[in-house]
Amino acid sequence: MSVKIIDLKANVMDDNNILAENTRKRLKAEKTFLLNLMSAPGSGKTTTLSALIPLLKDKFRIGVMEADIDSDVDAVRIKEAGAESIQLHTGGMCHLDADMTTQGLDSFDSASFDLVILENVGNLVCPAEFDTGASKNAMILSVPEGDDKPLKYPLMFQVADVVVINKTDFAPYFDFDIEKAKKNIHMRHPDIEIIPICAKTGEGVDKLAAWIEKEIIEWKK
Amino acid sequence: MSVKIIDLKANVMDDNNILAENTRKRLKAEKTFLLNLMSAPGSGKTTTLSALIPLLKDKFRIGVMEADIDSDVDAVRIKEAGAESIQLHTGGMCHLDADMTTQGLDSFDSASFDLVILENVGNLVCPAEFDTGASKNAMILSVPEGDDKPLKYPLMFQVADVVVINKTDFAPYFDFDIEKAKKNIHMRHPDIEIIPICAKTGEGVDKLAAWIEKEIIEWKK
Repeated sequence: MSVKIIDLKANVMDDNNILAENTRKRLKAEKTFLLNLMSAPGSGKTTTLSALIPLLKDKFRIGVMEADIDSDVDAVRIKEAGAESIQLHTGGMCHLDADMTTQGLDSFDSASFDLVILENVGNLVCPAEFDTGASKNAMILSVPEGDDKPLKYPLMFQVADVVVINKTDFAPYFDFDIEKAKKNIHMRHPDIEIIPICAKTGEGVDKLAAWIEKEIIEWKK
Repeated sequence: MSVKIIDLKANVMDDNNILAENTRKRLKAEKTFLLNLMSAPGSGKTTTLSALIPLLKDKFRIGVMEADIDSDVDAVRIKEAGAESIQLHTGGMCHLDADMTTQGLDSFDSASFDLVILENVGNLVCPAEFDTGASKNAMILSVPEGDDKPLKYPLMFQVADVVVINKTDFAPYFDFDIEKAKKNIHMRHPDIEIIPICAKTGEGVDKLAAWIEKEIIEWKK
């Protein structure tokens, strides 16, 4: 007996990839750089943005799209840091896809910004699977999570264009070996840029700002 | 024009719920208590189990099923703590469902254990959506993640039967207010038991062991 097998997941992924490519073309035409920021829950995405925005806001028009299953605590904090922000409620979804991202960009007038940052759902698995249409992907690994995370969540480290190691001031207390973390990250993604920061004190955030600035200038060419 | 709409997700969920109920009946008949342990990446699931197993292994036959997208670092650590363990590779899946759990139980001879612990994929979203067939659900919230996590990941705190707050020794350094965390957790799940621990020093782990012992005795009645 032969049955027709429909690979639903592959179709969903194909549709998403097409939409993501279209979103990237639109953003390129608008000269708007979209950074997709991913991490586990509580790695410090919002705190990092709060430290980052003051370093960039005089050079670039910045908008932030905050994805959250529920609540709006993050969008309020971003407004306080000096960027425009909207909250995207995912209604229980574990990730953002290209369609949800486009809805956010539409409601937000993306062409009026040089830099839009998408704060993805806190999750090291699903967001890595779905291309949002972003210009570049950034991910944050925080010290208390452990230096072994690249071994356990390989795809996230493969799709990232830059890895930020946050809460570095706690490295001695959590037996987190930065060199070992770098080795594990490079095993998944050779030559990827790794930027250690402490978002709370601001240490290293200037290096992340410089990386983003370089990428924005490249994108606008 | 009328089209037939098939709600795929609802069907998947219904099938999973039926299988999960069957798994629970089987475990009840076998007098095997299955604890589904969930948390964000790096919250200390394996470290907690390493501290917990020595307190329970003389009273109960313990097996641990370690779910991981890749790698076997956790299964090795659990063996060192003195429990039998197997590694379930999820192949990129963001959660375990009842079918994967049953496959693990089958390959493991679940009837030969009093307590089987399922260490779920590190993720605060997807594992909460899928009933694994476990007797009870436990989740770990670690201090560096922040006391606001129940606001952002409501379902996880609703499906949990006990919340363990880990890395309590770091509370002063992370502005983590334990009373505020408890209030946020109880907002999502009134009256749920909350057990603060420090898995690394072992502080409070005896209270978690006592909770599990009470639940095993109840399950075997």
